[in-house]
Amino acid sequence: MKFKIKEVKLSSGGPLIGILNNEDSTKLDLRALDRIKVKKDSREQVIAIDVAKSKRNISPGELGLFDEVMDILKLKNKDIVEISVEPKPLSLDFIKKKLDGTTLDKMEIDEIVKDIVENKLTEIEITYFVSACYRNGMSIYESAYLTEAIVAHGKRLNFKTYPILDKHSLGGVPGNRVTMILVPIIAAAGYIIPKTSTRSITSCSGTSDTMEVLAPVEFHVDEIKKIVRKTKGAMVWGGVLELASADDKLIKIEKVLSLDPEGILLASILAKKNAVGATHVVLDMPIGKECKLKHKKDARRLKRKFELLGKLLGINIKAVITDGSQPIGFGMGPALEARDVLYLLQNNKEKMPKDLRKKAILMATTLLQMVGVKNAGKKVVDILDSGKAYTKMKEIIAAQGGNPKIQPEQIKIGKFRYCAKAKQEGSVKEISNKYLTKIAKAAGAPTDKGAGIYINVKLNDKVKQGQNLFTIFAEDKKKLEFAIKIYNNSKVVNVEK
Amino acid sequence: MKFKIKEVKLSSGGPLIGILNNEDSTKLDLRALDRIKVKKDSREQVIAIDVAKSKRNISPGELGLFDEVMDILKLKNKDIVEISVEPKPLSLDFIKKKLDGTTLDKMEIDEIVKDIVENKLTEIEITYFVSACYRNGMSIYESAYLTEAIVAHGKRLNFKTYPILDKHSLGGVPGNRVTMILVPIIAAAGYIIPKTSTRSITSCSGTSDTMEVLAPVEFHVDEIKKIVRKTKGAMVWGGVLELASADDKLIKIEKVLSLDPEGILLASILAKKNAVGATHVVLDMPIGKECKLKHKKDARRLKRKFELLGKLLGINIKAVITDGSQPIGFGMGPALEARDVLYLLQNNKEKMPKDLRKKAILMATTLLQMVGVKNAGKKVVDILDSGKAYTKMKEIIAAQGGNPKIQPEQIKIGKFRYCAKAKQEGSVKEISNKYLTKIAKAAGAPTDKGAGIYINVKLNDKVKQGQNLFTIFAEDKKKLEFAIKIYNNSKVVNVEK
Repeated sequence: MKFKIKEVKLSSGGPLIGILNNEDSTKLDLRALDRIKVKKDSREQVIAIDVAKSKRNISPGELGLFDEVMDILKLKNKDIVEISVEPKPLSLDFIKKKLDGTTLDKMEIDEIVKDIVENKLTEIEITYFVSACYRNGMSIYESAYLTEAIVAHGKRLNFKTYPILDKHSLGGVPGNRVTMILVPIIAAAGYIIPKTSTRSITSCSGTSDTMEVLAPVEFHVDEIKKIVRKTKGAMVWGGVLELASADDKLIKIEKVLSLDPEGILLASILAKKNAVGATHVVLDMPIGKECKLKHKKDARRLKRKFELLGKLLGINIKAVITDGSQPIGFGMGPALEARDVLYLLQNNKEKMPKDLRKKAILMATTLLQMVGVKNAGKKVVDILDSGKAYTKMKEIIAAQGGNPKIQPEQIKIGKFRYCAKAKQEGSVKEISNKYLTKIAKAAGAPTDKGAGIYINVKLNDKVKQGQNLFTIFAEDKKKLEFAIKIYNNSKVVNVEK
Repeated sequence: MKFKIKEVKLSSGGPLIGILNNEDSTKLDLRALDRIKVKKDSREQVIAIDVAKSKRNISPGELGLFDEVMDILKLKNKDIVEISVEPKPLSLDFIKKKLDGTTLDKMEIDEIVKDIVENKLTEIEITYFVSACYRNGMSIYESAYLTEAIVAHGKRLNFKTYPILDKHSLGGVPGNRVTMILVPIIAAAGYIIPKTSTRSITSCSGTSDTMEVLAPVEFHVDEIKKIVRKTKGAMVWGGVLELASADDKLIKIEKVLSLDPEGILLASILAKKNAVGATHVVLDMPIGKECKLKHKKDARRLKRKFELLGKLLGINIKAVITDGSQPIGFGMGPALEARDVLYLLQNNKEKMPKDLRKKAILMATTLLQMVGVKNAGKKVVDILDSGKAYTKMKEIIAAQGGNPKIQPEQIKIGKFRYCAKAKQEGSVKEISNKYLTKIAKAAGAPTDKGAGIYINVKLNDKVKQGQNLFTIFAEDKKKLEFAIKIYNNSKVVNVEK
């Protein structure tokens, strides 16, 4: 049957969806989320349909299409296409099976992931999958299959060498730019570490956002390989591997009910490691009131699962449980964090964040121990103190197309500022990662690189009345005002006598 | 913060949704499906947001709105509104609770239904609720609370009298217009039966679609009361009670995986009975290969559940298990079914469908027995044979604004016709309800009143080669061709030697 395209001028956010009028769907015996094939010249695509009850926007004879389908089929408004009814994707049977409590096999999980990646499943359908994995749990084998499927339907970095080192943090701690200290250390020690990172999801800056202050981070797979061949290390945005495709969609659905189905969480992280060919991974697991992991017991259980799943996937994983009760470093937000990193690598004793140095040394040492380096702790400190790490960082910045000579003072910080001061004398009893993040984001981070927070105090520090606790930076006056408003309505740093 | 409205010129199908650009959502620390309050002059509305990743359609500073929100707030394109961040609805906590396996209480279920009715929940969120009810099951009390909540958030008919009779069929059998015979019988017997029906959901005609051939079916609550006071019976569209609001949304989500969470099914049906104040309900439960209920065992279990839930809700329910293996009556599609009904009520021995008469007598007798009528069977046959049922039908047609003098021959039938003939001699071994429905719908039913199928054979009938098995009727030549195409690709009536 022939239909006239009505461009709805909107993105569906991924899923391939068209809209038919109620009259047409009745005639074709189609319901919402049934499938049709849309054909135009030599191009064709199977899409899900939704049904418009009124004729207000989509009339009988019209097929409303979101951007995604318009782009794939290279259609224009009012084009005529041929449509035919298609069966629902096989993956829906597997999702139903999982919902009914059956354990899925490798092929079934692969089919589901493939259809998610190819935008063949709608959000309602993905929600059923997430519900099923959450409610029924996933076996460690299912997690392994899910990891492999996510990797199989993305791109890989293939270095044909051994070992390949990597690092990951479960996140939830502002600042915490361990990666940007650890990668130059490991690379300076002679090991390959092709580190891919995300941009901020919930935080005020992701490693990619901060690294981008110093050098570009978006590269094609071949370019990343070239950088790593040159310098052994890289700090690039992982989006290029297109793993995010399945991952992002699952995360969006999970966040709706703040679910974190463990099986999916494990797969989502290990897929990123598997895709770069990592053989040894050190995993940072911060625990704290406002972190993903609230209690040591949970952390230990998850640590065992990660290490076991690693074995199934042929990755040597060591998880380190760390303190996530307060920010690591002084800066929060891309530019302020990049400054911290440079001061530290330059061994500027006065301005470097000591907690970040300590944590980076711990993680780098663990990673080097995993590949059998003797006296790894001493070696790591030597690499930092001798300036070798800084030299390596400059090489990486240059290889990624940045300016290796940049000095921390040259990094531009937002010119609109507000100092939050202690209202009374006492000691710092609590620092809220959550509210610091909220305020830094309101101030413009990570989109505005110079926006964020510089914190002057750590837990248990003694402070005097009127002493500066932290400074909010913004590039825009209105955003600063918005951030101050949030600050005034929240308890960020708790000082008690 | 102020935002400029961008009308997206599309219906969300219910949920109140707006779209923000990625930059704005980051600044406001919002994720997809978080809530904001939109304010314009004295009007305000809390809506869910989705996030546009590119600036292609929604730019920073713009708030894209679907029809539903535009209408509620009476907004125009480019209007300026004030938005603020709102917490997520409480009902999401209850949905999470149910997903985690906890049984919900009355207040919690009420809150979920209220939010569904008021379009405060998105489809992803409703999917979590359906998953939870499907996977964890619902207690009979939860079903009762769900029924009450659906009724509480719709409209009611309140007759202040006793008893009030009603009837429902689980469906799946084409033709099967028992209601249109039973209602005049019961009303002629002196009992009140304010029957509300649906329009076709998956069938080629719902009772409302067929009744509409004889008289209007859409009335306000007060008008329905007036009709019932006058004639004791009514056959009207139930949509006016707005129960469909929660119901339709749940059904749409369920159908995606062809789920039929029993607790929701029970509530959905009994809510419609509860809303008209029914005290005695006869329930038709057809079983057959292509019905909802495939086996007697399932039917018996469901029958017990219905009757128990009825007790909790104060409704006397009797479920009758019936044969759903073939169509009831000759006609399928509004006009053809209306003809069947009139021939039967007029006692036209030659043209009436005897199976429909038999089934209607069974159901009406059961219902009258429930309210204590002696010799109910004889009474029902008398009412039919004496023409009292037909007289009552004419009263009802007149009360609903139709022409009571209409004769079956005056009902217009589609002029494009196709006869499906037996390809060999033998007896009818199988009739596919599913394919008959598909073909009737392809021919235009129920939108085109005169479209449908007239079937000449029943199971086990002997037929000769070339004998007419059924005729397809359509009001449009192209639709007839489409229906014939489906007929040629399917096994509708199986004749074997």
